[in-house]
Amino acid sequence: MRAVCLLSGGLDSSVCLALARSQGFECYALSFDYGQRHRVELESAARVAQNLGVARHLVVPIDLRVFGGSALTSDLEVPKGRSAAQMTTEIPVTYVPARNTVFLSLALAWAEVLGCSDIFIGVNALDYSGYPDCRPEFIEAYEEMANLATKAGVEGRMGLKIHTPLIHLSKAEIVKLGAQVGLDYGLTHSCYDPDEFGRPCGQCDSCVLRRKGFEEAGMRDPTN
Amino acid sequence: MRAVCLLSGGLDSSVCLALARSQGFECYALSFDYGQRHRVELESAARVAQNLGVARHLVVPIDLRVFGGSALTSDLEVPKGRSAAQMTTEIPVTYVPARNTVFLSLALAWAEVLGCSDIFIGVNALDYSGYPDCRPEFIEAYEEMANLATKAGVEGRMGLKIHTPLIHLSKAEIVKLGAQVGLDYGLTHSCYDPDEFGRPCGQCDSCVLRRKGFEEAGMRDPTN
Repeated sequence: MRAVCLLSGGLDSSVCLALARSQGFECYALSFDYGQRHRVELESAARVAQNLGVARHLVVPIDLRVFGGSALTSDLEVPKGRSAAQMTTEIPVTYVPARNTVFLSLALAWAEVLGCSDIFIGVNALDYSGYPDCRPEFIEAYEEMANLATKAGVEGRMGLKIHTPLIHLSKAEIVKLGAQVGLDYGLTHSCYDPDEFGRPCGQCDSCVLRRKGFEEAGMRDPTN
Repeated sequence: MRAVCLLSGGLDSSVCLALARSQGFECYALSFDYGQRHRVELESAARVAQNLGVARHLVVPIDLRVFGGSALTSDLEVPKGRSAAQMTTEIPVTYVPARNTVFLSLALAWAEVLGCSDIFIGVNALDYSGYPDCRPEFIEAYEEMANLATKAGVEGRMGLKIHTPLIHLSKAEIVKLGAQVGLDYGLTHSCYDPDEFGRPCGQCDSCVLRRKGFEEAGMRDPTN
């Protein structure tokens, strides 16, 4: 059974891919070169994809910088040292407008060509509750739309499923889950604002959440 | 009031843009260089956008050829001489998997950055009833999803509207409407399989539908 798995190279999407593989799916990993300032994550994505033995790994260039509006793709500052409370209530400037909608749509296009009806995405509604497109109600609406968007949908042989196995997990639970399904965390990358050598800043939301996750899971982060 | 208007450079999307303008919208035209074999339509899009005085015209490169699966983006033959019955019941190989889903998602990203809640798309459910992503139920589901996908949606100040003014019109009605709102049809391009000089083949679905539309409207096509 084939599945398209969105893979950024970060912690969550890598756990999600490892989990899909452990459930017996033949995985087609999909990454995007969207003008993100933490482009080094694409190298991590390639390493993770290879290590987990995916059937294919596609990196699609889609320059979201043309629209502007995000610290991840433009020249705005990446916020550092935000509190947990801020992270879970405020939409940060690192939010990329409609990013998951765009990524899922391209995953849907590939799924349709591959004739597969399973898409995995590592969204999380706890730590990223500030991101509209990480919420369960968004995913449900997306799935409903996707089932009307395709040939298979029209012909009544669809049942496209958007799998979000991490959506209700804490970062510590995600870290433990990844270890259970054999993910090598040394291959992953989380920081939004790495230095020129690709080393994490330690202070952006993504670094803070990652550290908290490993600490609470009682595990050591091999990238530290 | 701003609106993002999807513009291929073909007849329908050009009528749709002219209509949005006539309704008082400040129009942001969005085109895609997606590896279509009829790339000449992008030159038409630029001419139409300029002629109609849009606020901005963006052409976003998004190479859908990486996924394969369509005669419009790969090396499959474009079908010629199909009957009207075939056109309205069979999904042709010119169907690009999830194309409108992908295009609307990128329109949504731009709309969010522009702070606008109106998107125009020239889909038609009569002549393109073979395309799943031209149906009213798809558009409704998309709109619902889009209202959950964005910052504005989360903050309850949304009301994103996907305008599909052509969805229930015949080609003849569309042709007449475009003339009423001042569209210069000489600037548009419809053929899926033009020759090296950009001249229409006259036999693909798009050429056949265009000719039929002008004939039934009792009008002359200036590109003929």
